[in-house]
Amino acid sequence: MNRLSKLSIIVFSGTEDKLIPLGVISQGAAALGYEVRVFVTGWALLRFLKKPAQPTWPKEFEAMVPELAKGMQMNNVPSWLDMLKEAKNMGAKIYACSMMSQVMGLKKEDFDPSLIDDVVGVATFLQEAEGGQVIFI
Amino acid sequence: MNRLSKLSIIVFSGTEDKLIPLGVISQGAAALGYEVRVFVTGWALLRFLKKPAQPTWPKEFEAMVPELAKGMQMNNVPSWLDMLKEAKNMGAKIYACSMMSQVMGLKKEDFDPSLIDDVVGVATFLQEAEGGQVIFI
Amino acid sequence: MNRLSKLSIIVFSGTEDKLIPLGVISQGAAALGYEVRVFVTGWALLRFLKKPAQPTWPKEFEAMVPELAKGMQMNNVPSWLDMLKEAKNMGAKIYACSMMSQVMGLKKEDFDPSLIDDVVGVATFLQEAEGGQVIFI
Repeated sequence: MNRLSKLSIIVFSGTEDKLIPLGVISQGAAALGYEVRVFVTGWALLRFLKKPAQPTWPKEFEAMVPELAKGMQMNNVPSWLDMLKEAKNMGAKIYACSMMSQVMGLKKEDFDPSLIDDVVGVATFLQEAEGGQVIFI
Repeated sequence: MNRLSKLSIIVFSGTEDKLIPLGVISQGAAALGYEVRVFVTGWALLRFLKKPAQPTWPKEFEAMVPELAKGMQMNNVPSWLDMLKEAKNMGAKIYACSMMSQVMGLKKEDFDPSLIDDVVGVATFLQEAEGGQVIFI
Repeated sequence: MNRLSKLSIIVFSGTEDKLIPLGVISQGAAALGYEVRVFVTGWALLRFLKKPAQPTWPKEFEAMVPELAKGMQMNNVPSWLDMLKEAKNMGAKIYACSMMSQVMGLKKEDFDPSLIDDVVGVATFLQEAEGGQVIFI
């Protein structure tokens, strides 16, 4: 394992299903020793608030959500929130996008401080992400 | 061409339209000599079964699907499945995500063996992907 | 800043919300001195025409669009088109995918020449992207 490995994740999609791979990948990468950075923007911001919006599922797969939820419970799969917090315990940092926060009327104090480390601009994120892998969810 | 080039693709979205770029990019990268790894998870798993689910199209662009299908046929564009199999012939490996398979009640024998090489965890995938490009579809 | 830094963006999703991060990331990366390459494919092609299709918003978040639009206007946030053009002024190149253009019956002269630099195949794009970061939107 190259100790300089970095994985940066831009999370834009706010549907609940896509937050699962955010949790899984963040936690998995942090456990492998990656420097993990998450940049939350767009609709996803609404799920990182002190008073988060209700979960939204993609229209195309809505009918399958109860079965998915049951499968996660039966297999004792932690929620994406718990996986993300575990990633943070291992050093991951989570930033909210300053531009989209402003557009959506959200201030730093509106975000859940157990999740969001700071509100930063895209330039700061890109600089931290430089030279590593970047994925857009 | 750097002979160490690696491209790893995480496929979560299960809508049929997004499987087209999966096929195109996998085949294109494999043809260029890239080491290609595909990690199938989420809704996309349902399209890699021996008895695959019916195709699902995004609600927003449903009205355009017949025209798209006609355009693919008229231009003799291979299906994403054929492109992916071509990528495999050139060395690409395709893995199903073990956690999401378990959550969705899917076992290794449920997957189409002409597509899925193995069922692995996210840590295995990240280790194979390390140092290369990663995209999330 | 490593002067060889490259960021390549594949834009497939044609919903209007996801074109915002395309503009923000392209402009931000170009301003930092990155070599930025955008590969437009799938539904997104319809927004890069001389006569572009009407904007399409994701069904799940449609109800929030007026508020988002108001927030962008109140905060004087440039449109994704203006951000993308700014990125181009700083050296970003934007390509349309030749295969999907053909499938959708689109010719080079159908694309807005102030946006699209050329119509190229996935192999050309991957070769330009090699060794840099790649994201799929």
